[in-house]
Amino acid sequence: MTPGRPVPPPLAKPITVDTSESAPGTQALAAAYGGTSPDSGLVPLTVARRAPKEDDVEIAIEFCGLCHSDVHAVRAEWRMPTYPLVPGHEIVGRVTRVGAAVEDFAPGDRVGVGCMVDSCRECESCLDGLEQYCERGNTGTYGAADPRNGGAVTQGGYSTSVVVDRRFVLRIPEALDPAAAAPLLCAGITTFSPLRYFEVEEGDSVGVVGLGGLGHMAVKIAKAMGAEVTVFTTSESKIEAARELGADRVVLSKDADAMAAANRSIDVIIDTVAAPHDLNPYFLTLRLDGALFQLGLPAGDMPPVSPGLLIRRRLAYAGSLIGGIAETQEMLDFCADHGVASETEIVAADQLNEAYDRMVAGDVKYRFVLDASTLHQPSEKADV
Amino acid sequence: MTPGRPVPPPLAKPITVDTSESAPGTQALAAAYGGTSPDSGLVPLTVARRAPKEDDVEIAIEFCGLCHSDVHAVRAEWRMPTYPLVPGHEIVGRVTRVGAAVEDFAPGDRVGVGCMVDSCRECESCLDGLEQYCERGNTGTYGAADPRNGGAVTQGGYSTSVVVDRRFVLRIPEALDPAAAAPLLCAGITTFSPLRYFEVEEGDSVGVVGLGGLGHMAVKIAKAMGAEVTVFTTSESKIEAARELGADRVVLSKDADAMAAANRSIDVIIDTVAAPHDLNPYFLTLRLDGALFQLGLPAGDMPPVSPGLLIRRRLAYAGSLIGGIAETQEMLDFCADHGVASETEIVAADQLNEAYDRMVAGDVKYRFVLDASTLHQPSEKADV
Repeated sequence: MTPGRPVPPPLAKPITVDTSESAPGTQALAAAYGGTSPDSGLVPLTVARRAPKEDDVEIAIEFCGLCHSDVHAVRAEWRMPTYPLVPGHEIVGRVTRVGAAVEDFAPGDRVGVGCMVDSCRECESCLDGLEQYCERGNTGTYGAADPRNGGAVTQGGYSTSVVVDRRFVLRIPEALDPAAAAPLLCAGITTFSPLRYFEVEEGDSVGVVGLGGLGHMAVKIAKAMGAEVTVFTTSESKIEAARELGADRVVLSKDADAMAAANRSIDVIIDTVAAPHDLNPYFLTLRLDGALFQLGLPAGDMPPVSPGLLIRRRLAYAGSLIGGIAETQEMLDFCADHGVASETEIVAADQLNEAYDRMVAGDVKYRFVLDASTLHQPSEKADV
Repeated sequence: MTPGRPVPPPLAKPITVDTSESAPGTQALAAAYGGTSPDSGLVPLTVARRAPKEDDVEIAIEFCGLCHSDVHAVRAEWRMPTYPLVPGHEIVGRVTRVGAAVEDFAPGDRVGVGCMVDSCRECESCLDGLEQYCERGNTGTYGAADPRNGGAVTQGGYSTSVVVDRRFVLRIPEALDPAAAAPLLCAGITTFSPLRYFEVEEGDSVGVVGLGGLGHMAVKIAKAMGAEVTVFTTSESKIEAARELGADRVVLSKDADAMAAANRSIDVIIDTVAAPHDLNPYFLTLRLDGALFQLGLPAGDMPPVSPGLLIRRRLAYAGSLIGGIAETQEMLDFCADHGVASETEIVAADQLNEAYDRMVAGDVKYRFVLDASTLHQPSEKADV
């Protein structure tokens, strides 16, 4: 939510998970929206959330961001998921119950859950706090078989509640607006992590390609790190918007003269475009030892990268995947300290399908966030 | 030259530049081999070398390595050069004269010249000792207009002598065989530099793709740095050769099972193949935060790199260009300390055209080196 922009009133009767009915050790039924087939769209569902185990945290969800990857997943555009599938991995809410071994969270705490709810905890990546790169594969927040819970398929945050192991629960600083904080858990950390990995600091020059959910966070976070920020966009209509977000320079990538003028001016580029596109013009804007991090995953092949460009300036074409749990907490604290949050448009549950269509059309500034209080009452019997 | 392998006797009458005739301040005529058109092949030429200026070092050339890029340049396969063109940028010889301001070299010193003979000396790259990345373009050892010498086109090391500014002259440790040291000045530094940049150390795992002039140096240098070395090759016939060079493991890249067994086992790959080839199978052999440095410059497009592979392990697809002058000296001293040199086959001047054909056919283990004593007598009038 943009600071100052009011949350619209719930469009459906707000409901609350009645925790008095779910005493310790009992499971809770949660209202949710999800897909039941590639072309079902999102429909109301009821999800059985496990009774909190000793390391678990039960969360009453307040808000959940809508990520473009949710669309791909629900529509089976990447792979065929197990249906019903409840997406959502930008979750913010309040703790309702905790397991006996949980000491760092208590009922009432505002917390978040991002793209992962578990990992092997044993491989080198996990031991290094890089759970996103777990060598056995992390356990996604939705659509993933959860080895520590009998292989049950995880269900995401378009829902009234969720139960997650404490190791994968983040603390949301109270200084952050909860709706505007939700997208930090994917869009925020995904852009923060490569900027940190590249050790961006005061005075560095950061480029951002694409000005959507990820791109707008990259601009804000890079600015908060003290960088000079250049936004590359194909659309003249985005120049003003980029400047409003804090960009110091906007370059129309179709304008060869403007691109030439940006030659050798940037240290690191965060490329958030998830469609095939030619990277070579961007490499020319990088300085010696620069890097371009591609964060979006196009369905088709990317055009060939010119090794000559990489060679002549010792450049790197790199990838980066979300961030580790400790780093995600660092990012949340950084955002709270620097007044950084996502620009959001709050939607009610019954607007989700329309929001998906608008996301695909690029018609969102810059992140839809579901107000979970607009979800229906759960049925008496779980669908999943 | 392989240590222990004798230099064959000169196949033509050896000549020496008679420095008694070229008193300080006078230019010298040097015998050379070079091209006069894209299809002339290499023919005998006479080159006028400038009289040493105050910062110049005049070198009587003993040996010059044959680099694949010499072939591309002389045959105009990259761009149309100015003819006549004398290639050669792996030069080793003895100092014959020095300019008045030269204090660090004296006649008789064994010295070398690599791929550059000058740069702007003012840009950030030059000031950082990264002259190879000079923002105005370094001055190549051959075929480049030399701004500090009236724009004269530089002529390379297939010659009896050369005159080079002291700042671009390397000291060749006497412990190194001069013929086997020559290829260090391009093939050696081109592989040393990315290994150093990646901070390879004892116990790291290094992969080498391609086992030619660069590849065989990468194996030797990585071993000398204490790394475990894996050679990837398409050819079963190279397995034994790779082991002889010191490779700890050889993986046939056509063997899908062998490639799968190498999954996530390597920290950094040095890819020396200068033809279009699919890099994605190699990315799968890299560990988290690994990098693949491509050093060869194919004429055609490379197949698309999968951003998903880069993203899932935070990998980098990177380039690297030779090395700076200070780093080249470091590499030469490192090679002397570790007994590392190129495997060479010495050729006489009248074998150069045959050697080119064999290089193109990949029929060399691993670097041809011209014995400059086999060059003809220079004419009385310079061709260039």
